[in-house]
Amino acid sequence: MRAAIFNEPRSITVGDRPDPAIAHPTDAIVRVVLACVCGSDLWYYRGDSPFEPGPIGHEFVGVVEDVGTEVRDIARGDLVIAPFAYSDGTCPHCQHGITTACVNGGFWASPGIDGGQGEAVRVPLADGTLVAVPGSGHADEMLASLLTLSDVMATGHHAAICAEVRRGGVVAVVGDGAVGLSGVLAAARLGAERIIALSRNPVRQELARAFGATDIVASRGDEATEAVLELTGGVGVDATLECVGTGQSMWTALSIARPGSMVGYVGVPHGVELPVDEMFFRNKGVRGGAAPARAYIPELLDDVLEGRFDPGRVFDLETDLDDVAEAYAAMDERRAIKSLLRIGSL
Amino acid sequence: MRAAIFNEPRSITVGDRPDPAIAHPTDAIVRVVLACVCGSDLWYYRGDSPFEPGPIGHEFVGVVEDVGTEVRDIARGDLVIAPFAYSDGTCPHCQHGITTACVNGGFWASPGIDGGQGEAVRVPLADGTLVAVPGSGHADEMLASLLTLSDVMATGHHAAICAEVRRGGVVAVVGDGAVGLSGVLAAARLGAERIIALSRNPVRQELARAFGATDIVASRGDEATEAVLELTGGVGVDATLECVGTGQSMWTALSIARPGSMVGYVGVPHGVELPVDEMFFRNKGVRGGAAPARAYIPELLDDVLEGRFDPGRVFDLETDLDDVAEAYAAMDERRAIKSLLRIGSL
Repeated sequence: MRAAIFNEPRSITVGDRPDPAIAHPTDAIVRVVLACVCGSDLWYYRGDSPFEPGPIGHEFVGVVEDVGTEVRDIARGDLVIAPFAYSDGTCPHCQHGITTACVNGGFWASPGIDGGQGEAVRVPLADGTLVAVPGSGHADEMLASLLTLSDVMATGHHAAICAEVRRGGVVAVVGDGAVGLSGVLAAARLGAERIIALSRNPVRQELARAFGATDIVASRGDEATEAVLELTGGVGVDATLECVGTGQSMWTALSIARPGSMVGYVGVPHGVELPVDEMFFRNKGVRGGAAPARAYIPELLDDVLEGRFDPGRVFDLETDLDDVAEAYAAMDERRAIKSLLRIGSL
Repeated sequence: MRAAIFNEPRSITVGDRPDPAIAHPTDAIVRVVLACVCGSDLWYYRGDSPFEPGPIGHEFVGVVEDVGTEVRDIARGDLVIAPFAYSDGTCPHCQHGITTACVNGGFWASPGIDGGQGEAVRVPLADGTLVAVPGSGHADEMLASLLTLSDVMATGHHAAICAEVRRGGVVAVVGDGAVGLSGVLAAARLGAERIIALSRNPVRQELARAFGATDIVASRGDEATEAVLELTGGVGVDATLECVGTGQSMWTALSIARPGSMVGYVGVPHGVELPVDEMFFRNKGVRGGAAPARAYIPELLDDVLEGRFDPGRVFDLETDLDDVAEAYAAMDERRAIKSLLRIGSL
């Protein structure tokens, strides 16, 4: 099969990989229909994180081609969503809803595991990992929204949950990447009354407003803090979503959080030092991490299928597998918010 | 009036201070009945934190002697509990329950404000700050338990709330000082099924068990982590209370927290660096700070008055004001868990 391959920073090509086959009775083989590029893929793309050359990608939806003898809940022909980590669904951490800490789980594109940006994937622990989508003949827009549940929308939702977004609350979202925009949508879905999006990019501001942002702050650093405090009568916001992962963005998030509130953070930390004195003396908490997407998908899926929200609008570039390098480059250069890869068909 | 005075590290004496008088119409004058020494008082006592020479102490119960013309809810003759910070009860932060961030509030023994370890205190913002205790003729044991609501019991409760202790959950408490022991009691009150107390001191272990601890771990550092993980089948605990405030204690707390859980921390941080990678990649959150005691007192007060719990058992040494130096020394040398100062009578 053909799959995207990371060679070295800024070098992504399409190469041949062995066709995946059932290796364990709990495996499934999924033929990929849609995949996409994640903001976290840019860390190794840019050389900011170490990464082994090989297959890449961790977000995909596809059709089940084969299942192992012990797979019960997933069947050949199912349209499935794969969360960005695989998990057994039965270990204590999974039972507590933290599927990304599964004791038997792992991540796509790690040693021995296929990446999601390719024609097919062997999915370990298929029953615990995959979510079958009811219905058939879903339109392209629907498929794109379903794909976001693999990671970006689940991650925005995780930020909102960790930040304790409440109905009627005042929320701020730091970061206007695809995760931040999904965080805006998640906050709106959870009933926030006021959503302040920090963004300097007119295109992203527009999507933020479409997703439910009521206010835009176009400054950064101390100026952004002052602007948010001014918008909130000096109080700060009830819930803050940190969707970047840098020291500056975390500091901004903590400085606009009102005392007693939480910062939900989902940007993979790069150079983040948590300011414990600011946190302690103002009673500001932080919680976050790799989103347990698998645990969130069923709830979010219902809303997508019912048309109550459309997170797929976060994709503003589409390529096929041959043009995967452009999918990365466009995101790296911020020409695209998020790139969709159309790999197969239903 | 006479009051405890901090001169320099390890030098506490009793000196004369001006009799407090109403300075603002929202003030009250409280004649102190009981006060006590806090673990956080030891930071300046030991020279580990800077502190101006002058009055000290921030925990007291007493009888109202006079009120300003704008005080409505507190009257002369009331037995009152003073939380360790004063607050107006009306600002946005107070309305959100974070009275320790009150925009008009402050702390006892700060410039222009009396300390609690003296014969009388001018209480600013009396309506927002003080809680009147119903009934009369309370026994000494009851008064001691009421005094704990000023700080130590409210702080243990804050740790438990921030750690999200739930009915039926598994809890660990790091720290066997008065706050840690109060945290054990708070966790038991909130319905934890299993409470693991980390303590190497037989006297404190005994009180921890009396307060509801089901398991004692008598080791420290990595050994303590291993012991707690072994007790929990390798999973870690559902809620962790960090009641010390050192880097080692925070690391222990985070290392025994199960993925997805919270560490509630209330020890004033000294040299704490939060390990953001451990937190992020295991989805462990931290939340805490100076307890909004004023917001918690009404709820805790009911349980104390009804005899449902007796946090006053944390006091194991009693002195009068003349012997305040011994009250500090005994805690510093860990001869006492917490020292009670009997200053006046009802």
